Amino acid sequence: MIMTDIQAYMQEIGRRARAASREMARAETGLKNRALEAMAASLEEEAERLLEANAQDLEQGRRDGLNEALLDRLALNEARIAAMAAGLREIAALPDPVGAVSEMAYRPSGIQVGRMRVPLGVVGIIYESRPNVTADAAGLCLKAGNATILRGGSEAIHSNRAIAACVRNALEASGLPADAVQMVETTDRAAVGELVRMKQYVDVIVPRGGQGLIERVSREARMPVIKHLHGVCHVYIDDRADLDKAVRVAYNAKTQRYGTCNTMETLLVAAGIARAVLPPLAARYREAGVELRGCAAARAIVPDMKEATEEDWRTEYLAPILAVRVVAGLDEAMEHIHRYGSAHTDAIVTEDLARARRFLHEVDSSSVMVNASTRFADGYEYGLGAEIGISTDKFHARGPVGLEGLTSQKFIVLGDGHIRQ
Amino acid sequence: MIMTDIQAYMQEIGRRARAASREMARAETGLKNRALEAMAASLEEEAERLLEANAQDLEQGRRDGLNEALLDRLALNEARIAAMAAGLREIAALPDPVGAVSEMAYRPSGIQVGRMRVPLGVVGIIYESRPNVTADAAGLCLKAGNATILRGGSEAIHSNRAIAACVRNALEASGLPADAVQMVETTDRAAVGELVRMKQYVDVIVPRGGQGLIERVSREARMPVIKHLHGVCHVYIDDRADLDKAVRVAYNAKTQRYGTCNTMETLLVAAGIARAVLPPLAARYREAGVELRGCAAARAIVPDMKEATEEDWRTEYLAPILAVRVVAGLDEAMEHIHRYGSAHTDAIVTEDLARARRFLHEVDSSSVMVNASTRFADGYEYGLGAEIGISTDKFHARGPVGLEGLTSQKFIVLGDGHIRQ
Repeated sequence: MIMTDIQAYMQEIGRRARAASREMARAETGLKNRALEAMAASLEEEAERLLEANAQDLEQGRRDGLNEALLDRLALNEARIAAMAAGLREIAALPDPVGAVSEMAYRPSGIQVGRMRVPLGVVGIIYESRPNVTADAAGLCLKAGNATILRGGSEAIHSNRAIAACVRNALEASGLPADAVQMVETTDRAAVGELVRMKQYVDVIVPRGGQGLIERVSREARMPVIKHLHGVCHVYIDDRADLDKAVRVAYNAKTQRYGTCNTMETLLVAAGIARAVLPPLAARYREAGVELRGCAAARAIVPDMKEATEEDWRTEYLAPILAVRVVAGLDEAMEHIHRYGSAHTDAIVTEDLARARRFLHEVDSSSVMVNASTRFADGYEYGLGAEIGISTDKFHARGPVGLEGLTSQKFIVLGDGHIRQ
Repeated sequence: MIMTDIQAYMQEIGRRARAASREMARAETGLKNRALEAMAASLEEEAERLLEANAQDLEQGRRDGLNEALLDRLALNEARIAAMAAGLREIAALPDPVGAVSEMAYRPSGIQVGRMRVPLGVVGIIYESRPNVTADAAGLCLKAGNATILRGGSEAIHSNRAIAACVRNALEASGLPADAVQMVETTDRAAVGELVRMKQYVDVIVPRGGQGLIERVSREARMPVIKHLHGVCHVYIDDRADLDKAVRVAYNAKTQRYGTCNTMETLLVAAGIARAVLPPLAARYREAGVELRGCAAARAIVPDMKEATEEDWRTEYLAPILAVRVVAGLDEAMEHIHRYGSAHTDAIVTEDLARARRFLHEVDSSSVMVNASTRFADGYEYGLGAEIGISTDKFHARGPVGLEGLTSQKFIVLGDGHIRQ
């Protein structure tokens, strides 16, 4: 397509999404749930076709020389299709946020004032590789009463198309507008530029993918973006920590999975406990194949650590590498976190109540934890049901973003002919 | 100042604000309240100096040919200074939103998850004319634990400086950083351009003033903006309305004050009740000196109305003028509101429960009312204590924005050595 065609194509998608969003905002809970169930059933019924489409993408990916990790992310199989269907059924089972009224109270004037939850409108999702996002994101946005515009990566275009077809058929069969979920069919990158500029049609953008994508979207978007750029998460082991808990939490936060944004990347240890906790921890990390990079004080205790550079404190490794720093105590730990961290997830291990209170109050991250692994920072673990992403911003949503983050609240006022004096 | 100087000057203000915001986020409730009380006392003690400074602005304003309405907005007097002080004491009396923990619950994994309210960081306020905004906005932001950068209009520079000096002295005397409230001292418009681009230092911008200002800020700002552009508010009189309530509400919504954003600008009347309600209403409006501009059907009932043009349906008069349209019923009324309205405040007058429910659910405005005057859309009337502005956006805040809208929520997690399996 040439540029003016892409613009016209995207504008048309925007117009349809806006129109569908009006219908979606009014849609009854039962209708939305039946559509989600129908989407799940359709994915299962069409499993064979999905696998065929996915095989095309995988073949092309291999020809294009994608590495094994990328090919794995791209791949669908029976289990992954079943997981998508199960995810949609879980979303159907969640309470409908739309229309929920809270804080309804009488005011001295006699009017009743409360808040009613409303959909945001149109959500744009820009993602890479994983085709399951097509179903997950569409389902979550649909339950929250929004219309969705999906823009997946070109490497997954056949898989995404096949999934989107299932979703749209299910919507229509359920009596909801098919345009409530639209997929951008062109793989031209200019379509992304157009999508993030259509302020009149798109209310919020959620980029899901690598840093390059998120940086580009944040820079260009004219509407709000729900995003986190980095996940440089810390565990601080206080000198009043319980040794066993410290080892358990710090080990889990690093090794339970390496490639996730809530994985610990820097371990901070109070000087008073470093000699006791670093040697046993280092031994466990060594077993797991984790490379340690430490400050001078850490290396004085565990000599086979590499030397950490300034760069290490800012790095999200997403790999079996861990930066280790010995700090004087709580204040220095919090200073380090605010200076080098990404406001994603940070934890303290301590038995001291006053220090736990200070850490919870003063650390300015989207998730702040006491005696728990950073790996818990997740929509499912928090009971949100599912998440569209994790936000490290403060405006609108912070931390894992579920159904509530895809909605807003309006004020409602009930009177009986009340007027203002 | 030349441009590079303004840039350097604003950057320095930004750096100081960011540093002060860290201290403010930790500040104890009692300390913040004492500072607010001290600010109130300081304004009262320095009343004479404030009036002198204000006299300078008024004199200059007269020389510059400002009209009476603008001069009135600009003017301070004993009563207005007392009102500023009272406003600050009311903010001191409001509950501190910062640190409030909600929804704390145990999860199946054994961790406890909840949310803690946190300040946004640095709030930039850009305003015109009214010098009381200097104290009101600074007080509200302070209570919410934020640092504030104030940029008032050049016509009020002496008054704003005098008020800001009181505020900063009170902050210092109370042991809080004076830089928690900074005023931009240059009247160069380039300073606004710089302020709304300093994304690294300013977390949210609140423009308060005319449409020109708000449009410019929305267009140029790189950070989120809390704003409403227009207030084209509607009252719809349903054919199942109680006549007395309809007249009372519609009269109050237009005439209680003409210049406010929540004043009704268009009256919609169901055809079935138009002959009964329009004549008595028109008589009352005529008495009050309100000019009526109607559609053909309305003019067939009240012949001395002017003819309304398409433009009238989109106009925020802020004056004793009202557009009147007869509609078939609820659906046409809601269609009109969505097409021509500004998503600010819209009301229905009806005794019919099903129609009231539909209006509340389907009208997509920041405040939606049943049998109550649109003039109630206000932070004080809603019990928010005070408001920094009214937002017609959906992201983050919608409707009157008080302390809560100046904060965010982070997740907090408590465990006892819990790890993710």
